[in-house]
Amino acid sequence: MSGIILFGLGEIGSGIARLALERGVEIRGAVDIHPDKAGKDLGELLGLNSLGIIVSGGLDGALSSDADIVVNSTISSLEGLEPDIIKVINARKNLISTCEELAYPHANHPEIAERIDRLARENGVSVMGAGVNPGFVMDRLVLTLAGTCSSIKKARATRIVNTSERRINLQKKTGAGMSPTEFSAGLKEGRIRHVGLPESVRMIADGLGIRLDEIRESTEPVIAEEDVESSHIKAEKGMISGLKQVALGMKGNEPVIALELHMYMGAESCDSIQIEGTPDISMKINGGIHGDVATVALITNLIPRVIDAKPGLLTARDFA
Amino acid sequence: MSGIILFGLGEIGSGIARLALERGVEIRGAVDIHPDKAGKDLGELLGLNSLGIIVSGGLDGALSSDADIVVNSTISSLEGLEPDIIKVINARKNLISTCEELAYPHANHPEIAERIDRLARENGVSVMGAGVNPGFVMDRLVLTLAGTCSSIKKARATRIVNTSERRINLQKKTGAGMSPTEFSAGLKEGRIRHVGLPESVRMIADGLGIRLDEIRESTEPVIAEEDVESSHIKAEKGMISGLKQVALGMKGNEPVIALELHMYMGAESCDSIQIEGTPDISMKINGGIHGDVATVALITNLIPRVIDAKPGLLTARDFA
Repeated sequence: MSGIILFGLGEIGSGIARLALERGVEIRGAVDIHPDKAGKDLGELLGLNSLGIIVSGGLDGALSSDADIVVNSTISSLEGLEPDIIKVINARKNLISTCEELAYPHANHPEIAERIDRLARENGVSVMGAGVNPGFVMDRLVLTLAGTCSSIKKARATRIVNTSERRINLQKKTGAGMSPTEFSAGLKEGRIRHVGLPESVRMIADGLGIRLDEIRESTEPVIAEEDVESSHIKAEKGMISGLKQVALGMKGNEPVIALELHMYMGAESCDSIQIEGTPDISMKINGGIHGDVATVALITNLIPRVIDAKPGLLTARDFA
Repeated sequence: MSGIILFGLGEIGSGIARLALERGVEIRGAVDIHPDKAGKDLGELLGLNSLGIIVSGGLDGALSSDADIVVNSTISSLEGLEPDIIKVINARKNLISTCEELAYPHANHPEIAERIDRLARENGVSVMGAGVNPGFVMDRLVLTLAGTCSSIKKARATRIVNTSERRINLQKKTGAGMSPTEFSAGLKEGRIRHVGLPESVRMIADGLGIRLDEIRESTEPVIAEEDVESSHIKAEKGMISGLKQVALGMKGNEPVIALELHMYMGAESCDSIQIEGTPDISMKINGGIHGDVATVALITNLIPRVIDAKPGLLTARDFA
């Protein structure tokens, strides 16, 4: 069984920790910079019995543990995470991460992608950004289905998420409960945003061999038509319940790849993929794939595959 | 670009030939034992201009060509195909095949699977059985979706195929147009049957780490409720329009994997997958994935991946 170091103990990281323990995966270290977590016993933090694993406040201390892979769930920004990724690679450990921009860094950070790939190969380890979105439902699954087509004119994926059923962080970053003015301000400051759509567009384009001229992204608020609430947040009628974000992969004036993400409280969750091609494909997942539960599972399921993979930077495209 | 040898020029093989030519893949040889095809120019057989490739009546002659991979679409039986697979491997060429029993030979032919795997590794080539069913819609896609689950109680896939839209061979092997008596006789003699369901059940079980006690398979006729016809065959009311075939992966008395295949003229085509687990997943492809068109595409799309793969026996599980 593989030994892992958990780096980041938010809801996703804690979920991975619990599932890993259930499956008998050995946790050899845990890291979280939050002062409420660092120094505590991991088991107690998870609401379990003591595990004898003290959460380290920094990555450096933990990296001396004998582990095969670091499981990271801290931030969405690849620029922010790069120094930690470099440390993990230099410690000759594999890395799997929920960092959205790492899911397909060739999109917006080709130089970082190249640096990570080269260093990982030199050190004989693999690095992968993974998750449900980006990483599965709006990209990998599109490519998997597209594998049965002899030609493709257009690929469209729509993900509708009822954020009421999700973690509070997601409600916050989709603007739930805000006034329209607060939403506009949050949008400008980059606080309101799902990270990952351009990554998914580029992954699909590269997988299908389509050269895009441009990726266009836009976000608009969803206004609550009646009062709607989760266990954390209430959005009164007229306030923001969430957002609708669109990314288009353009070839000339034609959106050959169209990704639509609706995330708001009270939405009817559903994932769908339409491919116009030979043959046409129209897929629907009623109720959608639950972002948090499934990301925890997906990451945990991928751990042995990332450890076994050939060295370098991997993406979900390698699994489609 | 890779060079290929086509082995089998039925509807699927001819479709692959046409798509390969469209994509600029070099066809370096073609084989078909049928006396109407052997000795003819491949281009003329495909209804195109002459290609200067004369169809060989046997595999041996063609294997001296300088090609990366043999693309086989001849028979469903792995026992029948094994001698040809051995020849291809000994000629140090990769192989991709529509042979249903090769899609997951670990199910019913573990010794053959081991022989092929060992010989392929020794010769540095890859061998894979592929197609839409088995190979995609009732197994690989189940495993791909299951990758987002932390636990699974039961997996169910249902494929409904309107055989009126498909090739005549499929209508024949599903009994379309027969009387109930002829159907029963055909079933006993093994002429009426879709090959591949136990392969799919075993692939799913192995992919999910489930140890099955038994695989149960059953087939029953579908009786035409009114006259129904394709361009090839007519089934009058009361006659057979096709079949319903079920394979169950049993753990004790519980069918933990349930695959249902309905193939009859006039059916409303649809593929669906239900996973009972954490989270539950319910997927549907309206109109289904077209078996012939998509098998041609899938095989052609997989050619470069099989050539690049590490040596040995591959299955769709490696791509899930």
